[in-house]
Amino acid sequence: MSSQNTKVIDITEHSGITTEPLSGSEKSYVIGSRDDIRVPFRKILLTDTPNRNTELPGEPNAPIYVYDTSGIYTDTTQVIDVEKGLPAIRKTWIDERDDTEELSEYSSTFTREQEAKLLDIPLFENNRRPRRAKKGGNVSQIHYARQGIITPEMEFIAIRENIGRTEASKEGSAPVGFDTHITPEFVRKEVAEGRAIIPSNINHPEVEPMIIGRNFLVKINANIGNSATTSSIEDEVEKMVWGIRWGADNVMDLSTGKNIHQTREWIIRNSPVPIGTVPLYQALEKVDGIAENLTWEVYRDTLIEQAEQGVDYFTIHAGVRLAHIPLTIERTTGIVSRGGSIMAAWCLAHHEESFIYTHFEDICEIMKAYDVSFSLGDGLRPGSQADANDAAQFAELITLGELTQVAWKHDVQVMIEGPGHVGMHKIKENMDMQLKHCHEAPFYTLGPLVTDIAPGYDHITSGIGAAMIGWFGTAMLCYVTPKEHLGLPNKDDVKTGIITYKIAAHAADLAKEHPGADIRDNAISKARFEFRWEDQFNLGLDPDTARKFHDETLPKPSAKVAHFCSMCGPKFCSMRISHDVKAAFAEKSEEFKAGGSKIYHQV
Amino acid sequence: MSSQNTKVIDITEHSGITTEPLSGSEKSYVIGSRDDIRVPFRKILLTDTPNRNTELPGEPNAPIYVYDTSGIYTDTTQVIDVEKGLPAIRKTWIDERDDTEELSEYSSTFTREQEAKLLDIPLFENNRRPRRAKKGGNVSQIHYARQGIITPEMEFIAIRENIGRTEASKEGSAPVGFDTHITPEFVRKEVAEGRAIIPSNINHPEVEPMIIGRNFLVKINANIGNSATTSSIEDEVEKMVWGIRWGADNVMDLSTGKNIHQTREWIIRNSPVPIGTVPLYQALEKVDGIAENLTWEVYRDTLIEQAEQGVDYFTIHAGVRLAHIPLTIERTTGIVSRGGSIMAAWCLAHHEESFIYTHFEDICEIMKAYDVSFSLGDGLRPGSQADANDAAQFAELITLGELTQVAWKHDVQVMIEGPGHVGMHKIKENMDMQLKHCHEAPFYTLGPLVTDIAPGYDHITSGIGAAMIGWFGTAMLCYVTPKEHLGLPNKDDVKTGIITYKIAAHAADLAKEHPGADIRDNAISKARFEFRWEDQFNLGLDPDTARKFHDETLPKPSAKVAHFCSMCGPKFCSMRISHDVKAAFAEKSEEFKAGGSKIYHQV
Repeated sequence: MSSQNTKVIDITEHSGITTEPLSGSEKSYVIGSRDDIRVPFRKILLTDTPNRNTELPGEPNAPIYVYDTSGIYTDTTQVIDVEKGLPAIRKTWIDERDDTEELSEYSSTFTREQEAKLLDIPLFENNRRPRRAKKGGNVSQIHYARQGIITPEMEFIAIRENIGRTEASKEGSAPVGFDTHITPEFVRKEVAEGRAIIPSNINHPEVEPMIIGRNFLVKINANIGNSATTSSIEDEVEKMVWGIRWGADNVMDLSTGKNIHQTREWIIRNSPVPIGTVPLYQALEKVDGIAENLTWEVYRDTLIEQAEQGVDYFTIHAGVRLAHIPLTIERTTGIVSRGGSIMAAWCLAHHEESFIYTHFEDICEIMKAYDVSFSLGDGLRPGSQADANDAAQFAELITLGELTQVAWKHDVQVMIEGPGHVGMHKIKENMDMQLKHCHEAPFYTLGPLVTDIAPGYDHITSGIGAAMIGWFGTAMLCYVTPKEHLGLPNKDDVKTGIITYKIAAHAADLAKEHPGADIRDNAISKARFEFRWEDQFNLGLDPDTARKFHDETLPKPSAKVAHFCSMCGPKFCSMRISHDVKAAFAEKSEEFKAGGSKIYHQV
Repeated sequence: MSSQNTKVIDITEHSGITTEPLSGSEKSYVIGSRDDIRVPFRKILLTDTPNRNTELPGEPNAPIYVYDTSGIYTDTTQVIDVEKGLPAIRKTWIDERDDTEELSEYSSTFTREQEAKLLDIPLFENNRRPRRAKKGGNVSQIHYARQGIITPEMEFIAIRENIGRTEASKEGSAPVGFDTHITPEFVRKEVAEGRAIIPSNINHPEVEPMIIGRNFLVKINANIGNSATTSSIEDEVEKMVWGIRWGADNVMDLSTGKNIHQTREWIIRNSPVPIGTVPLYQALEKVDGIAENLTWEVYRDTLIEQAEQGVDYFTIHAGVRLAHIPLTIERTTGIVSRGGSIMAAWCLAHHEESFIYTHFEDICEIMKAYDVSFSLGDGLRPGSQADANDAAQFAELITLGELTQVAWKHDVQVMIEGPGHVGMHKIKENMDMQLKHCHEAPFYTLGPLVTDIAPGYDHITSGIGAAMIGWFGTAMLCYVTPKEHLGLPNKDDVKTGIITYKIAAHAADLAKEHPGADIRDNAISKARFEFRWEDQFNLGLDPDTARKFHDETLPKPSAKVAHFCSMCGPKFCSMRISHDVKAAFAEKSEEFKAGGSKIYHQV
């Protein structure tokens, strides 16, 4: 739905989108019950286990399948064209449900005003019209689930959550007959009962369906946003592409400032992962940054504007109530959520409950018409150890629990945002309180940071808390980069933040004993013990960095098959000696068995 | 005790020792009951809290005292001369006990052979003769403790563990009358009961006493070692100095190869922190790297050689018994401890119990004569998730518990080494088993790594496990650098590893609610909320990196007092808005109080 009186700038010539597959990997699809359910995986190809007798051939190692968030950007058979956007893989599914209608024009006043403007920026030429539920309808996945309908999205997710284990089991890298509880019906049931959400706006048909819930793999979110110094659209798209390349399951666009409507369009049209936003930020821009000038009308128009672009979930700070504000006054770090502080300022200026709270059911009506999920914002999360688990935080959490039930009454999907800065001993209480007060709606936390004393390393202080709260049941972890509290993350920081959070999420999957979560660990450990260096790199979360680190001291190709590394050198390589021990034991145990010795069994 | 027929090379001209104090800090000493108990702290100086009315003066913030491992290298009043070594601050205490004697020559044959050689390397000119307990005596701290003696070392530690809080309380940065359970008598009792150790070889009088035990602050160890490419002595000393600068409480010298005796001398003479080693590595060098050629005699001479140099604790792999070896054969990653694999190879080759196990009481005799502490090595620790908490690991742990009691029978100090690779859900069992089977001797773990899939990021995979096991009761955490499994760490890697482990240790102190552990968190959070940027940097674990990150986007000096940063910009700065909310609330609550409104109290 491009506007004709705007200047369209060709951006392909500058295109800096990262597209090559990860090292040692290729894209693989598992087809579902219908041909258009094509679930992507990353297939990591492995080398043979060398035979100790080097004249004999090695033993082959079957490929390992891993969950793949990177979309078609890592599929060498696809042509990437950010000006066209991604294929609308869900379009047929949405059409078939026959419960939506194409609109002749955007419903948002703001969007229409933007279309009328001549802007000196590149615009995405969207040929699709916005969709909305037919009058009075509800097109949310929870609405279908509660009617017992298994959508193609749900089947896609069931296959995806099994990480290609059915295939792997056939090929030998997973236990034969590997079974899992994750069936399409299980997905439906979890969504119906509110324990999981499928962020999937009908206006984002490009999305590869994914699920957020504590009985599924733990997910991570990466935040991106425009910045004053960055002007090109492909840079903004590349931020998203870079994030999903390293494993971001969701991306939140937290842009502020000029042209965020247009930038968001580029991002959504090119994003295979759900996009979340905080609509309040844009609403505040519309009133020139003056919190007290915010109105329900401006906010409502922003929700509709973004819903019709295809944003999959909104952070909605409805839990900041007037009565909670006094609880924050004596805090060490006050209100550290941007949305929370804006709404608190509004409430005080007007001496009224926030319009987000009072209009919550109106918001539900919007959410259900597009299937936008709630991410109920924790506007009063603690910003320091001193404020963790305090009265303000938990008062808001109880409000969020009440609002969850309101949303569910409307068949709208909900997750709950959580802190923040919380010491290890206080983390579990957060999860327990959330499960209790929010009725098992998925929890989505920022860290938490387990100490305040390490600016520059808050990906680590928060990664510790994230791993733990993920184990305890948090469904999605919002990443933190090394620049937290200090400045804007660059590309390296984003990658570091994502890898740290992949570690946290995977450690949580292992600790929850999620079926098959350990297949990759076992494969990399076997590769390590067998000195298959390339396999060790490629099975890791970041093959490039692992290879670079290895090569800093041993760059020669021969070192990639060496039975040692530079850490200990050949003489002190425990793994090399351990192989000798194993061989000696095999020999000796025969010998001693013949002599009737029991020495190896006398523990 | 320099040898006269050796070539002494002047190294001061190349000296690259890092000596300046950390940013914003100065050295401060607290004096104990006698003038020669001078306990070092790092005093972080803070700026004033700005007044909202900028014409009025700000409120002063009292300095914060933090535990300081960096020795006199960060004391601007001291002259550093690595050729002279550090002052022997414990010499008088050792002399006064009158239970040791100076030897006329080194007891180790190897040491005497080295002295007779003409080596083309710089040698440390040690003017002190080696000391040993008088015949049949025991000079260990546990021996004194069990007789009810409070040594100057114990008093030093009591003051040190209080992190200058008595001073801070007087100056206003800690609660007035701040009290703690850590008295000299408490230190004595913990040592007497084996729950804590004070690594303090009588031949390392330069050491600033410190304690390892779960009722004290969690400590960290950094490993250093020579490498083929590094030849200069000051580089080796600088590795240690660099490590303690960022907070290493202990340093293990894991050097292998040529001239390690001489390198070790340089390190010990210049180290204010306890030095640990794995004597088996040097013993193996002496038999040309052939494990089966190791003998008790070579090993024994190595223990004495290192004890007379001043090594404070020895990793002794006495728990690898012949009967445990079959338990490792089917493991995914076999034996990953270097010492463990060497001893397993020896046991198999000789078909005998290891000489370290059979001579354990002889070793105790050596340990007590110099006060070297045992660090009972976990030769069978798991090297992968697949091998975690397996029969081999726990069989060895039970043996270590038996050996602990043997050591205690001899009044020798003991700690126990622990894994390794262990998922989050299996960590607590490690701690519980260790406490039970090793009778509460301090636990000293390597990580554990909570997943195997992130080579290049194992400081993080292990930092997560380290924080958790520290909370559960581990007394010292052995750091892991980003190069783990891949290659040799450089200076940046060492720093990253240390900072990560300082985070883990401090997070554990917070979670254990160690008295006063939160003082620094509260100070940095207050600084953050008040936009005192310089204070926020200086109160962090790594001021240089924090400042650098901030300056990447906002380099101007004015940005150091700005009420926002580049992350959100001024309009979206929650903390700035939060200050406005606080001011508005103060105003409104007066207004509404006058009108009798109850709206702020209706939660």
